[in-house]
Amino acid sequence: MTEKLSDATRGPLLDPLFQTGWTLMEGRDAITKTYKFSSFVDAFGWMTRAAIWAEKWDHHPEWSNVYNKVTVVLTTHDVGGVSTQDAKLARKLDSLV
Amino acid sequence: MTEKLSDATRGPLLDPLFQTGWTLMEGRDAITKTYKFSSFVDAFGWMTRAAIWAEKWDHHPEWSNVYNKVTVVLTTHDVGGVSTQDAKLARKLDSLV
Repeated sequence: MTEKLSDATRGPLLDPLFQTGWTLMEGRDAITKTYKFSSFVDAFGWMTRAAIWAEKWDHHPEWSNVYNKVTVVLTTHDVGGVSTQDAKLARKLDSLV
Repeated sequence: MTEKLSDATRGPLLDPLFQTGWTLMEGRDAITKTYKFSSFVDAFGWMTRAAIWAEKWDHHPEWSNVYNKVTVVLTTHDVGGVSTQDAKLARKLDSLV
């Protein structure tokens, strides 16, 4: 079952993501990152791969795209904050670039 | 060449879009619409079809997706406002639903 990250698990799971450009959002227990690609085709191609993993894992990002940039916000509505599912999806999104 | 809509062309081009749920944004010469689908797969499937047309026409939306909802903003940066290209893409996006 998905649970909100505890104080003990936040560091080990989130610190590696902060190293790759993820940050905590202000005023909201969510993590965010903006990916920049060389073109719209590259950006949307990455979104398509990400979308398939999101659906496979039944855990979907909030995301926006403007030409070659994609901004992603991850949080788990069911638990009201960042969960292990978000950390797992964040790692996958990084790996798909 | 793409031009910003003139006073004479705005009505004929935008009024039909306002009938389908497009609205003018506040404080910005852009049109926006939120599409709601039955699932993430339906939402992203529509985005994929839209992305191919956007690239084909070299005119890209600003858009965001949260699960089954997609919010689209159309404007033409080169002309600083809504152009015939935006109206054309808006009609296409409606037709792809």
